[in-house]
Amino acid sequence: MSLSKGLDKYLLEVRKLNNMGRWATEFMHSRTTVSEHSFFVTQIGQMLALIEEENGNTLDWGKLFKKLLNHDVVEAITGDIISTVKHKSNEMRNMVSVIEKEIAEENLFCNMEEPYKKIYREILFDGKDESLEGQILKASDHIDALMECIGEIRLHNKSPFVEKYYIILEKLKTIELSSVQYFVSSILPEIVSGCGEMNCE
Amino acid sequence: MSLSKGLDKYLLEVRKLNNMGRWATEFMHSRTTVSEHSFFVTQIGQMLALIEEENGNTLDWGKLFKKLLNHDVVEAITGDIISTVKHKSNEMRNMVSVIEKEIAEENLFCNMEEPYKKIYREILFDGKDESLEGQILKASDHIDALMECIGEIRLHNKSPFVEKYYIILEKLKTIELSSVQYFVSSILPEIVSGCGEMNCE
Amino acid sequence: MSLSKGLDKYLLEVRKLNNMGRWATEFMHSRTTVSEHSFFVTQIGQMLALIEEENGNTLDWGKLFKKLLNHDVVEAITGDIISTVKHKSNEMRNMVSVIEKEIAEENLFCNMEEPYKKIYREILFDGKDESLEGQILKASDHIDALMECIGEIRLHNKSPFVEKYYIILEKLKTIELSSVQYFVSSILPEIVSGCGEMNCE
Amino acid sequence: MSLSKGLDKYLLEVRKLNNMGRWATEFMHSRTTVSEHSFFVTQIGQMLALIEEENGNTLDWGKLFKKLLNHDVVEAITGDIISTVKHKSNEMRNMVSVIEKEIAEENLFCNMEEPYKKIYREILFDGKDESLEGQILKASDHIDALMECIGEIRLHNKSPFVEKYYIILEKLKTIELSSVQYFVSSILPEIVSGCGEMNCE
Amino acid sequence: MSLSKGLDKYLLEVRKLNNMGRWATEFMHSRTTVSEHSFFVTQIGQMLALIEEENGNTLDWGKLFKKLLNHDVVEAITGDIISTVKHKSNEMRNMVSVIEKEIAEENLFCNMEEPYKKIYREILFDGKDESLEGQILKASDHIDALMECIGEIRLHNKSPFVEKYYIILEKLKTIELSSVQYFVSSILPEIVSGCGEMNCE
Amino acid sequence: MSLSKGLDKYLLEVRKLNNMGRWATEFMHSRTTVSEHSFFVTQIGQMLALIEEENGNTLDWGKLFKKLLNHDVVEAITGDIISTVKHKSNEMRNMVSVIEKEIAEENLFCNMEEPYKKIYREILFDGKDESLEGQILKASDHIDALMECIGEIRLHNKSPFVEKYYIILEKLKTIELSSVQYFVSSILPEIVSGCGEMNCE
Repeated sequence: MSLSKGLDKYLLEVRKLNNMGRWATEFMHSRTTVSEHSFFVTQIGQMLALIEEENGNTLDWGKLFKKLLNHDVVEAITGDIISTVKHKSNEMRNMVSVIEKEIAEENLFCNMEEPYKKIYREILFDGKDESLEGQILKASDHIDALMECIGEIRLHNKSPFVEKYYIILEKLKTIELSSVQYFVSSILPEIVSGCGEMNCE
Repeated sequence: MSLSKGLDKYLLEVRKLNNMGRWATEFMHSRTTVSEHSFFVTQIGQMLALIEEENGNTLDWGKLFKKLLNHDVVEAITGDIISTVKHKSNEMRNMVSVIEKEIAEENLFCNMEEPYKKIYREILFDGKDESLEGQILKASDHIDALMECIGEIRLHNKSPFVEKYYIILEKLKTIELSSVQYFVSSILPEIVSGCGEMNCE
Repeated sequence: MSLSKGLDKYLLEVRKLNNMGRWATEFMHSRTTVSEHSFFVTQIGQMLALIEEENGNTLDWGKLFKKLLNHDVVEAITGDIISTVKHKSNEMRNMVSVIEKEIAEENLFCNMEEPYKKIYREILFDGKDESLEGQILKASDHIDALMECIGEIRLHNKSPFVEKYYIILEKLKTIELSSVQYFVSSILPEIVSGCGEMNCE
Repeated sequence: MSLSKGLDKYLLEVRKLNNMGRWATEFMHSRTTVSEHSFFVTQIGQMLALIEEENGNTLDWGKLFKKLLNHDVVEAITGDIISTVKHKSNEMRNMVSVIEKEIAEENLFCNMEEPYKKIYREILFDGKDESLEGQILKASDHIDALMECIGEIRLHNKSPFVEKYYIILEKLKTIELSSVQYFVSSILPEIVSGCGEMNCE
Repeated sequence: MSLSKGLDKYLLEVRKLNNMGRWATEFMHSRTTVSEHSFFVTQIGQMLALIEEENGNTLDWGKLFKKLLNHDVVEAITGDIISTVKHKSNEMRNMVSVIEKEIAEENLFCNMEEPYKKIYREILFDGKDESLEGQILKASDHIDALMECIGEIRLHNKSPFVEKYYIILEKLKTIELSSVQYFVSSILPEIVSGCGEMNCE
Repeated sequence: MSLSKGLDKYLLEVRKLNNMGRWATEFMHSRTTVSEHSFFVTQIGQMLALIEEENGNTLDWGKLFKKLLNHDVVEAITGDIISTVKHKSNEMRNMVSVIEKEIAEENLFCNMEEPYKKIYREILFDGKDESLEGQILKASDHIDALMECIGEIRLHNKSPFVEKYYIILEKLKTIELSSVQYFVSSILPEIVSGCGEMNCE
């Protein structure tokens, strides 16, 4: 096989996340790319982790950052299947999950050599589990979506972002981390202020 | 129910096709929207039909145009699931097809009243069957994709569009219409000329 | 002449409609291209025709779709002369009309062979006459413009789109089709709702 | 009338030139706006004038800059009628010229008060005459178009910009100014170098 | 040296102003380029000068236009250092000013021959002095910034543009020209009208 | 002070990196934002670290990711001063560094409360030191720039990206990490292949 062990292909695939916009079916004043989303999710997760530490909890920073940074890399290969479709049914969710793995095998890992094949396979599919780090990832993904909604609403693009905001906020509140509770009660109200149409009770 | 019988909602949903770009994971100099794609597929289908008529075949123009114009409208609701995913397996294709119908029911038809509900349900899901009109739709969809590839290659954006060009061309050639044979043998070579990297044998 | 009979050139010219934005002198949050406009006008026309049929009228679907789909194709060659200029005077309108035909002859039809030359010449210049199909085209063109105004106003881009909205609405109301009356009285109010600045009496 | 004497309206109209792209029917990697074009034409004219002075000619700098800066301001009101149309015939050119003046009167000057009405009317319609300053304007307009072609060709966007390049170059060469001859013989070859497809003999 | 005396390089550098957007750190609905800014500053300066003449003052139009047109050309080489940084301290301002000159020498003038080297060196660094023309430049630069703020506020992009508007307005008012006073008291209120959130006392 | 301890302000400032494009003075087919750059630098750093571990070296993953993720956050406040300016002289570099800290204090930290103020102050200014993690950051920053150059060259945008490519490659080679040597000798040649204009010896 090649000297590069397939790592060149990995970098070129990841770079495609720059081409992919989120919320594909909606008009947005400021459509973020999946790369920008991944960066910001990682920033949010870093903040939640700092708050967790202040609250006396400990976490594995290396594990956390890997989860945050890589959680959407597979989309470079599969595209961003909108969540209405992905979460339509358990059957669909499982099907998508299986397919994503197959496509990643065929388009990415089949060209990668050990030990990197094993390492990246773990990294790319190690996501939103019930560990503290997994929960922080789940919360950060929701918080980034909330902030995208807020950004649009502030610029008067209300439909469908006001409605989405409340739906996502409800999901966020179900995550029982002290950092999330602090975000919802103390940080979010400041972010939303001046955005008269909303409250975040 | 409302005086509008849900027709306002239909128009607003279709308009979302302006927001949706094709080939989501690739860099493109000129990314077309699903609306632009639908327009051009209809133009190509019109041309193929004129050629069929010159060859002595008859077709139902109303049926043809409805197929061409509406073949991607459902994507306004489901997003553009990239074809690598959609066509990964028969199981996936069927699953996607079922889900698309369910989502269309829940987000579009549930708000529509008769007789329009029945009419649009037929229009939106009456696609690439084996009728002459259905085959023209299938061919037009491929030809538009070919022309998108050619447009990018002409501007020196070769990867992955040269490869895609040849894959799509093979699919096109399997459609046994005289208009398609004429397109491949006589029109396509002129379109490709000046695009030195390719031939279209 | 060439094997393609000039049909390659026709497709390449039509594709230019993807490059051309509407309302050239105004700032827009979401500028549609002439291709997107043509697609949506055809969708609106399809809806008006369905409503006409419900009202017991009959129409020629093939003729209708050809009018709708092709009504702005000539602009690919002449550019989109803004309507303030085009409709400045009868003299100007006639002059523009004559020039458009000459330019189409020189840049498109001179390279096209029979029978396609005759067919496309008819298709491209068969527009807003007094037939039912011609009136549906005229109405659809206005309704698309209305919806572009509404889209901008909803995003707080009020000047000059509020003013344009009312001007176009008046023109629409002069078209005496039952489908148009139904659109104005029953569909438009739903579309405008939530757009507090306007009413559509 | 208003305290502003209509000068607010003038500024708001001129600002629309930021919205208007040139070469409306063509794909461009880098479409310039009419404002950017006007800026660059003025820069080119400044250079030609400096060269003229080096050659011992004298010119009226105030008059020159006014011609250069304002030569396309009227387009903010009329839109950019593409030159194929505008220069189709003498009759068309005269017609467009008359209409442009009428529209400027109705949309701009009717709201302006003296003395500014008289001053701006002169400024906006004092263009490409046979004075040295008028000829510099004409040459600068061509040179900017040449440089737009070169920019696209350099990025591999050859059709139709190679062809346009040679047509415009011929027009430029008909202007008998020493600064233009110097530009064509000594500056242009350097600009074109590295752009292998062209020479500028 | 070359026949072009380095003038080709000057034109290519200036053209880069088309690539550079203003207000780099803020979201804007309509981000102007440095070329568009330069064009509009020159238009504003022309208006202020006409008003000065009406008030009986005389000015050197050639000198004025050169100041207006060229005041940001050096940015094509140095980039647009945001003003918060540039004006952080006198030390910083002086440092930036020295560096800009050095970079211009190394990247532009070192390739230019006399007499153009001397002429352009004067033109590019002859800016906001205390002459009438220099004061008009300073005022025009502020007025363009005000109008960019107004444009964004009108489209509901209030933060940080409302705050910036008032800061810039205060700076503008410190310029003691009768044309500026007229602009502030009589033209600006008309421009701002309909933009309910602001007054311009 | 506020309940949010200034963390809301931090998130809003970081989000501005989505607005900021890199290589401000150059035309680019695909201009990346500072957020996208930060994401990709972190991906590259993760890869280099995995290679270091394979080579038997150990590193602090938490420390590494913090360096990678946050290395350009301060630019959200100061803007992206182009490197030609920043690295013009030691004096300039020091000056910029001092100013950046002052501006961060005034615009970010003055609103932040302990303990976060102390933590983020460390995170944001802990960059390219001589630790293994600091060297990986430095290398990753160069590799991302290389890949931006390659992306443009592949699309035929050669000037100035071919020249920049070689300059950056030289800088990269001065970093004496085994992962960097492996990247240069084994991964980069694969990435560059098909990009005929370059070699990467």
